Amino acid sequence: MMELDTSAGAITRVPGFEAAGVSCGLKEGGQPDLALVVCDREATTAATFTSNAFKAAPVLYDSALLSRSESGVIRAVVANAGIANACTGEQGDRDAHQMARLTENMLGFPPNSVFVMSTGVIGKLLPMDQIEAGIRSACQALSPSGGAKAAKAIMTTDLVPKEASIQFKLGEAIGSIGGMAKGSGMIHPDLVLAGSSPNNASPLHATMLSAIVTDVNISRNALNGALSKAVDTSFNRITVDGDTSTNDTVVLLAGSQADNVMIEIDTPSYTVFENALVDVCQSLAKQIAGDGEGATRLVEIVVEGAVDHAQAVQAAKTVATSPLVKTAIFGTDPNWGRVLAAVGRSGAQVIPSRTGLWLEDIQLVEQGRPIPFDEEAARMALSNPEVRFTVHLGMGEGYATVWTCDLSYKYVEINAEYHT
Amino acid sequence: MMELDTSAGAITRVPGFEAAGVSCGLKEGGQPDLALVVCDREATTAATFTSNAFKAAPVLYDSALLSRSESGVIRAVVANAGIANACTGEQGDRDAHQMARLTENMLGFPPNSVFVMSTGVIGKLLPMDQIEAGIRSACQALSPSGGAKAAKAIMTTDLVPKEASIQFKLGEAIGSIGGMAKGSGMIHPDLVLAGSSPNNASPLHATMLSAIVTDVNISRNALNGALSKAVDTSFNRITVDGDTSTNDTVVLLAGSQADNVMIEIDTPSYTVFENALVDVCQSLAKQIAGDGEGATRLVEIVVEGAVDHAQAVQAAKTVATSPLVKTAIFGTDPNWGRVLAAVGRSGAQVIPSRTGLWLEDIQLVEQGRPIPFDEEAARMALSNPEVRFTVHLGMGEGYATVWTCDLSYKYVEINAEYHT
Repeated sequence: MMELDTSAGAITRVPGFEAAGVSCGLKEGGQPDLALVVCDREATTAATFTSNAFKAAPVLYDSALLSRSESGVIRAVVANAGIANACTGEQGDRDAHQMARLTENMLGFPPNSVFVMSTGVIGKLLPMDQIEAGIRSACQALSPSGGAKAAKAIMTTDLVPKEASIQFKLGEAIGSIGGMAKGSGMIHPDLVLAGSSPNNASPLHATMLSAIVTDVNISRNALNGALSKAVDTSFNRITVDGDTSTNDTVVLLAGSQADNVMIEIDTPSYTVFENALVDVCQSLAKQIAGDGEGATRLVEIVVEGAVDHAQAVQAAKTVATSPLVKTAIFGTDPNWGRVLAAVGRSGAQVIPSRTGLWLEDIQLVEQGRPIPFDEEAARMALSNPEVRFTVHLGMGEGYATVWTCDLSYKYVEINAEYHT
Repeated sequence: MMELDTSAGAITRVPGFEAAGVSCGLKEGGQPDLALVVCDREATTAATFTSNAFKAAPVLYDSALLSRSESGVIRAVVANAGIANACTGEQGDRDAHQMARLTENMLGFPPNSVFVMSTGVIGKLLPMDQIEAGIRSACQALSPSGGAKAAKAIMTTDLVPKEASIQFKLGEAIGSIGGMAKGSGMIHPDLVLAGSSPNNASPLHATMLSAIVTDVNISRNALNGALSKAVDTSFNRITVDGDTSTNDTVVLLAGSQADNVMIEIDTPSYTVFENALVDVCQSLAKQIAGDGEGATRLVEIVVEGAVDHAQAVQAAKTVATSPLVKTAIFGTDPNWGRVLAAVGRSGAQVIPSRTGLWLEDIQLVEQGRPIPFDEEAARMALSNPEVRFTVHLGMGEGYATVWTCDLSYKYVEINAEYHT
């Protein structure tokens, strides 16, 4: 397994894919706001979508597209930022459909071969003239080095683009995965695999969008399995504000340009692919949490020793969404009491006298009670750009890691000023 | 039914009760930090406690006290602010017990007749010398006009004391209820009646403390029933930050000084009493939400037309805890999209095309889609000190009201600076 690469242009480091990022005027100042990713052949496709009841038009469009298309075959992904095309009724549905048709027509692809994503303000209709002009210039700008521009074009309140790629061996062959993502606010993904029933494990729920591509040969079943696993341990483990979006979408295209033997589920090569996909998705997810609105720290909450994994996730998410914990971290305050209080209200089974808490390697709580610790060292640890709290419940074998960020004055500024 | 009175001194407007608020040095600057409320006779008592797994020592003490005492008979409530006596292990348990014993001894009351409450910093041990001196001076300061001082002595980050009283007719007799409360941060009560099993209706969960007294004759069964109902529609319907505290406690003492015929459950006089208690508890709860840390508005979220009441509560609480909704209100932004997104992720059954949303009397959303509205009027409505959003789901008969506040820069300041 080779190293994860988070430098610019990830998605077009995968052989067989071209991309573009252009401006069609949805964002102020002529920033790129329309992205296009194209595969040189039919790609086997898997996707996960938000569990929010108010699903945006592109989510409904893609969902139907993947369930219609027996083989789940897609040639391109078109995405815009600035307007979410959510809560837009039947006109919104027609517009999502039209984005796909325009892209198909301009690229000379057959119907039902383009996947659509939108992010931005809720309730506004897309200016279809501008979208059409944008798609036209994106088709002209397509390039095997267009990945970085595409990653910038899907940003909204993001300060930096999120990209990650990896290469791995499959027998004698080399496989690649490359992905891009966006997301900064309304981040608490609760993504469900296309065609599966809603995931009720978490009562919590982002707009986060991610497009990931790979060149391996893989069955659709194996692709669904790997994406489901990877999303559950990455995008579904991050939170910025606890607010699950109407538009959250992760799409994964496998173009089969590589020379590997077809990957089937539960084989050694499947494990290699799944691990590589988890690495890419976790990198993208952590980049989102670290760039959460107003964030000054990436915060990792680890819960170990829970009764089971579901309770570990529940406890970790409760700590990760606690405004009291998040403001304490912003204030570099090792406020272990707020962490324990969050664990105690999470619904996870807890026996106080069994509970331990660590900030990095500094133990703050033993058997449910504070123990003396080096406060200066704790404050120093909290000043780092990445901070980890580990809770041990002593109840069983369940564990989970969740990523979040601190809650700063800037968060309030961004969200009290960013009007509809 | 007479008018609700929220002026100072509520608890001692009830005949038969004296109170005091003194300083024992737990708060800086000599602010009062120890409160005492005493009944002139044995009072029938009911109480509700936090469902947080990390229950503070006074919560554990009181809980055991009420289950031991068959008749639930209490003579006095002693409370301190500044130190929560939570996560303090066996020494904490001994200290809570000692607070009760000292009070009983100084007042000449029998064992097991004093109820204890604490609020403040988690993890610190109570300085028992100071507490003892405080209890002594409180006993000396007891007065039939001491209610206002007691209400101030239980404040922590509260900017104002919370008090409410009411009088009502029971046949020819006049009954009174008077109460005080505190709470500003770590407010998301999920209170459970002493001796009952945990309430699983809400996955969410404050330190809020409240002591309420009445002079009516009432059976313990009726007192439990009325308190349970009143708490469920008041304190359990407010949230500031979604963080349920380790110390939340509401205690209700009935001294039977009034001349009414004993109130039994499910009788006309019970209904009169329950309604009066609901009024007092809702007033205190709204005073807490309106004085939430950093709050500039009291926000009322009404959900109607849910499948059932539980789903209505779930939807309203999800909107009320959404940082995106709360920052939008701080920014006087009628951001209906954030309200809908929160409803959509709440887990309540929603069909977008049936959903309507109003800000006061201004309709913002019809059939799941935004409709044109007077933006200036909406911004004016959002500038008022009290703001109401009403969501109609069109699914059934369930309804609920939840109170919260906006999320401001000041919230971040208070919680990033208020160190352990």
